[in-house]
Amino acid sequence: MASFWGSREMNILVVAAHPDDEVLGCGATIARLAQEGHAVSILILGEGITSRYAHREDADVTSIAALHARARGVCAHLGARDVALAGLPDNRFDSVPLLEIVKIVEAHVGRVRPEVVFTQHGGDLNVDHECTYRAVLTATRPLSGCPVRQLYAFEVGSSTEWAFQQFRPVFHPNLFVDVTDTLDRKLTAMQMYEGEARSFPHPRSSEALRAQAVRWGAVAGLSAAEAFVLVREIR
Amino acid sequence: MASFWGSREMNILVVAAHPDDEVLGCGATIARLAQEGHAVSILILGEGITSRYAHREDADVTSIAALHARARGVCAHLGARDVALAGLPDNRFDSVPLLEIVKIVEAHVGRVRPEVVFTQHGGDLNVDHECTYRAVLTATRPLSGCPVRQLYAFEVGSSTEWAFQQFRPVFHPNLFVDVTDTLDRKLTAMQMYEGEARSFPHPRSSEALRAQAVRWGAVAGLSAAEAFVLVREIR
Amino acid sequence: MASFWGSREMNILVVAAHPDDEVLGCGATIARLAQEGHAVSILILGEGITSRYAHREDADVTSIAALHARARGVCAHLGARDVALAGLPDNRFDSVPLLEIVKIVEAHVGRVRPEVVFTQHGGDLNVDHECTYRAVLTATRPLSGCPVRQLYAFEVGSSTEWAFQQFRPVFHPNLFVDVTDTLDRKLTAMQMYEGEARSFPHPRSSEALRAQAVRWGAVAGLSAAEAFVLVREIR
Amino acid sequence: MASFWGSREMNILVVAAHPDDEVLGCGATIARLAQEGHAVSILILGEGITSRYAHREDADVTSIAALHARARGVCAHLGARDVALAGLPDNRFDSVPLLEIVKIVEAHVGRVRPEVVFTQHGGDLNVDHECTYRAVLTATRPLSGCPVRQLYAFEVGSSTEWAFQQFRPVFHPNLFVDVTDTLDRKLTAMQMYEGEARSFPHPRSSEALRAQAVRWGAVAGLSAAEAFVLVREIR
Amino acid sequence: MASFWGSREMNILVVAAHPDDEVLGCGATIARLAQEGHAVSILILGEGITSRYAHREDADVTSIAALHARARGVCAHLGARDVALAGLPDNRFDSVPLLEIVKIVEAHVGRVRPEVVFTQHGGDLNVDHECTYRAVLTATRPLSGCPVRQLYAFEVGSSTEWAFQQFRPVFHPNLFVDVTDTLDRKLTAMQMYEGEARSFPHPRSSEALRAQAVRWGAVAGLSAAEAFVLVREIR
Amino acid sequence: MASFWGSREMNILVVAAHPDDEVLGCGATIARLAQEGHAVSILILGEGITSRYAHREDADVTSIAALHARARGVCAHLGARDVALAGLPDNRFDSVPLLEIVKIVEAHVGRVRPEVVFTQHGGDLNVDHECTYRAVLTATRPLSGCPVRQLYAFEVGSSTEWAFQQFRPVFHPNLFVDVTDTLDRKLTAMQMYEGEARSFPHPRSSEALRAQAVRWGAVAGLSAAEAFVLVREIR
Repeated sequence: MASFWGSREMNILVVAAHPDDEVLGCGATIARLAQEGHAVSILILGEGITSRYAHREDADVTSIAALHARARGVCAHLGARDVALAGLPDNRFDSVPLLEIVKIVEAHVGRVRPEVVFTQHGGDLNVDHECTYRAVLTATRPLSGCPVRQLYAFEVGSSTEWAFQQFRPVFHPNLFVDVTDTLDRKLTAMQMYEGEARSFPHPRSSEALRAQAVRWGAVAGLSAAEAFVLVREIR
Repeated sequence: MASFWGSREMNILVVAAHPDDEVLGCGATIARLAQEGHAVSILILGEGITSRYAHREDADVTSIAALHARARGVCAHLGARDVALAGLPDNRFDSVPLLEIVKIVEAHVGRVRPEVVFTQHGGDLNVDHECTYRAVLTATRPLSGCPVRQLYAFEVGSSTEWAFQQFRPVFHPNLFVDVTDTLDRKLTAMQMYEGEARSFPHPRSSEALRAQAVRWGAVAGLSAAEAFVLVREIR
Repeated sequence: MASFWGSREMNILVVAAHPDDEVLGCGATIARLAQEGHAVSILILGEGITSRYAHREDADVTSIAALHARARGVCAHLGARDVALAGLPDNRFDSVPLLEIVKIVEAHVGRVRPEVVFTQHGGDLNVDHECTYRAVLTATRPLSGCPVRQLYAFEVGSSTEWAFQQFRPVFHPNLFVDVTDTLDRKLTAMQMYEGEARSFPHPRSSEALRAQAVRWGAVAGLSAAEAFVLVREIR
Repeated sequence: MASFWGSREMNILVVAAHPDDEVLGCGATIARLAQEGHAVSILILGEGITSRYAHREDADVTSIAALHARARGVCAHLGARDVALAGLPDNRFDSVPLLEIVKIVEAHVGRVRPEVVFTQHGGDLNVDHECTYRAVLTATRPLSGCPVRQLYAFEVGSSTEWAFQQFRPVFHPNLFVDVTDTLDRKLTAMQMYEGEARSFPHPRSSEALRAQAVRWGAVAGLSAAEAFVLVREIR
Repeated sequence: MASFWGSREMNILVVAAHPDDEVLGCGATIARLAQEGHAVSILILGEGITSRYAHREDADVTSIAALHARARGVCAHLGARDVALAGLPDNRFDSVPLLEIVKIVEAHVGRVRPEVVFTQHGGDLNVDHECTYRAVLTATRPLSGCPVRQLYAFEVGSSTEWAFQQFRPVFHPNLFVDVTDTLDRKLTAMQMYEGEARSFPHPRSSEALRAQAVRWGAVAGLSAAEAFVLVREIR
Repeated sequence: MASFWGSREMNILVVAAHPDDEVLGCGATIARLAQEGHAVSILILGEGITSRYAHREDADVTSIAALHARARGVCAHLGARDVALAGLPDNRFDSVPLLEIVKIVEAHVGRVRPEVVFTQHGGDLNVDHECTYRAVLTATRPLSGCPVRQLYAFEVGSSTEWAFQQFRPVFHPNLFVDVTDTLDRKLTAMQMYEGEARSFPHPRSSEALRAQAVRWGAVAGLSAAEAFVLVREIR
């Protein structure tokens, strides 16, 4: 499996809305990129899980801390360099002015100076994904001096497909990454997020994730693939 | 006119944003379903009419109570089993976090356990309709155990067509329900909502509503029809 | 009803695929434009009706001649200046290289030198409509010296709506023409094409055509309207 | 697994472009429908395989006859009532006027009088699929008296996904049929078409077809599903 | 260059989100319309520039006043009749209920009673543009008695194209206005907004704006053009 | 200007419909790729110019030979390795079964074994462009063993923009190639095709082509760019 991302070591940034979205969306690609020598940073915008409580403040501080510890464990497991957590309110990004989310991402882009960015798909059912997408598009707009050359959107099981193509944009992938060698690493990463894995046929179960990777593989002439939308590239 | 919804009695839920949207969107279909023996529940998320005042609190409590009484009268007139009113702020659903609307609908779905759900179309000009659509899509997502097998979106005169196809999704109906026998019942229901009916050529006038039903009928080889978008169905 | 097409007399060209499409698509608008003093020419590309026979040559020459005579009668009835018939094979435009259709339209545009062109919508179910649309788009492309400043697409009952939005482009009208005063003239024109009118609920029946006009009227705040898509305009 | 298609026995028609498309597109659904007592007829428009030869006439008559025998064997295996083969030139439907294909389908619809029709998706890469789709849409248009109440489009591995969403319409399924009990029957049917099955990761291989069914299942909360687009339904 | 907007003097309203959007979007068209004798009013909804500060209240009152003075100077330079500034929070329109923005625009439409309205394109990256678009669509909906006959959307450099077609609607212009004679006036207006002009290759630089006008001109057979989307027109 | 296509020398194939489309679409990118050491092959499917004659056989053999000589000169000028001409009938690709065009491209792909392919955009007004696109998509489908890893579509002045977004797919570019250093080479190549260059404001004139490159540059933060759509990529 030759490296298609070139021989130079690159800075790569993954911007996810919630802990586990980075795994569901591009966990196997992160592992492959790390193996190929690239430096992958992860930024998670939301705090995770508080939306399961009637009031946000009811969420157990210990549970949140444990979730964040798992995020760091997953980061190490995938071979990424670091993970940052920004703490936006779970499933309530629509209550935050978009401008604030933009500023968080801009600051992070300024620090990491990534050539490649992966982020949530904007047409998802989950409103946090939509806000994340729009914020990343804004924070990485192609001003002279912006380091970002490639921006990709990833899908997330139980959110992208459950939009049933009703929102804009629709997930029509045009990049298929061969993850034959790193798919298992993604599936074990998902199990590390205990609270988030589900039993089949839930789209986040191991069986469903494997079927999804095999299906995308077949679309691209590969044994297993993750699929992405190229939003823009500058060469 | 044979029943195409099968011989079993089904639970059916209509989720509307404002009092009268349930009539404009699927009043004649509700009447037909009730005649065929199905149990139709109606959930109206908003309080209605307060947006006509400079400040929401200026709205006359008596007027709101009268509006809600009319909603109950209309429910009985159409043969629906019951109507619930959730009281969200009129034409200000965008000031409520989506998650709260989702939780209202989820609770209602848990009580009614409908096999079929009808709701607002998401591409409407009215922002409450958009929020309702997204909340219903979320609250009825196809988790194992979710009772909902069919989800349909309806159009609402003076909101769906006045988006002029600028928002996503666009209303492209694929289900046409024969309402030859129940169209008149819809038109009288609309008159029961005195404050909401308008004089021709307003899209909510009797003449316009009849022309719309005749037009959809002609599209489908029927004398009169209501039109819907099937969002998803599981068989 | 003031004239919105300005006070200057303009040359206007209608390009239809079959005899009666010019009426179904813009018959009432033709009548209004003629009343307002504009010179309307009609070009009908196909010979009409031969697709109803197993072999094209079986079609009765007398029937075709009678159809063409009716086309001329309808032209006069609507107040148009002239009608030309090009004789392409009915419902078999896809067996003619597009280039040939383009050349027919180009020649006609050269003669009439219209500022405004109305033609079939390209996303129709009928393949002749699709070919006509593409040919007109090509023949009126905005080269310097091309007289055409406005190009509009019209819908045709039983073809535009029976595509059920499956083909590109979708009919999303953005021009609504007030035809309150000339709708009856359209309906009688349709009756002059005896063989083409149908009984309700066929979309070409008088009742369905009237409902369609009333429905578009309500969309636009008018008593009756014909609806069009502006493809391009140069000012 | 209750029958969602109602208790009445229905006539159902599958219109496919090539031998094996009926299996790839809806083989497991055919098997389920047959088990539930419905009468399924299959119409295959093309002759199959001749496009693999430099000149159509080079194709071995024996090979074609053997292919057709396999089509009949598959029909029996799935429990369908009958299969008809129309003999259009393989991968050259675009050289036949659409009107001729329409007339073939119309005649068949007249004989079978189906309430439900399944056919190829119109946005496929394969041009025969596109022609089939358009012909079926035309042949089943909702004239009064037309028996067809539901029209569905199916996807076909290595053609629908290999269009990469470039053609209109895009395959956005809204019906998911539970095929947990009949998926194996589909896979063995595919093996009966020896020449058409491929080794993994080809989209027509058993592994890829199973992954696709599991993936659609996860989308719909089922163990395995086939996915369809509802084009129109009249109730 | 003949006037295509007719000989009558018309009231025309431009609704922009921020000071300078009116220039970027339709500055040269405003200048041409003014030259042709029409009365152009400008409404700017936002206060401008405060989003550049960490907290809105940090913004220098003097800076804002200077910006507004420049807006008035630009208005005079283009020949528009007047400019009003509504003071919504810069780049935070999503924190204001849409209804409030609608009411601001409705009041202005009531005063100006425009036949033609130009406004921001709804699919822009900038969230204020999206809110403005939706508010104007609502405030000018075609109720009987509404004076607005034509509604157009304009693009704004560094926001429309930087959405990279990810949001709905996509900017597909269908009106091209010849601005050969007034393009320079637009470019000097942009320089009057000192803080907003940028150096090439920024889309708001003079070179980029000129290239854009020349490119749209070539699309339309003109030396220079501004491009618009017709949202709806009633004639 | 670093090479973003990696350090390995790659085989690259450009498939154009007519002599000059390869220049209009990606002439400056070809020149840059050649400078960076890649091997670029060009395949031109059509014979060129015969559509300008009433009958194809009227075209002057000498004129065609001269055109082909110019194609070879342009190839050398841009630094491409070779150019092949397939001789399909000009502006009449729709009279050739698609399968035949596919076989021509497949044979060429087999010989060149390109990793990257550039071809016409499928939503162009010109019907030859549409056929070319569909044929290339088919001929490069991702079967195991297919060498093609990246497929891009390019726009062609006076055909892509003159479709006015009416056909599917719409040209929404997501790759912007920096051609600051090779734009002039493209413009002189265009002048080498004497008969094809036009005077401003024609989209094929030097002034218009330069404005287009500057406009795309501004979109991408570059001084000049060519724009492409990534159809699919496999990594």
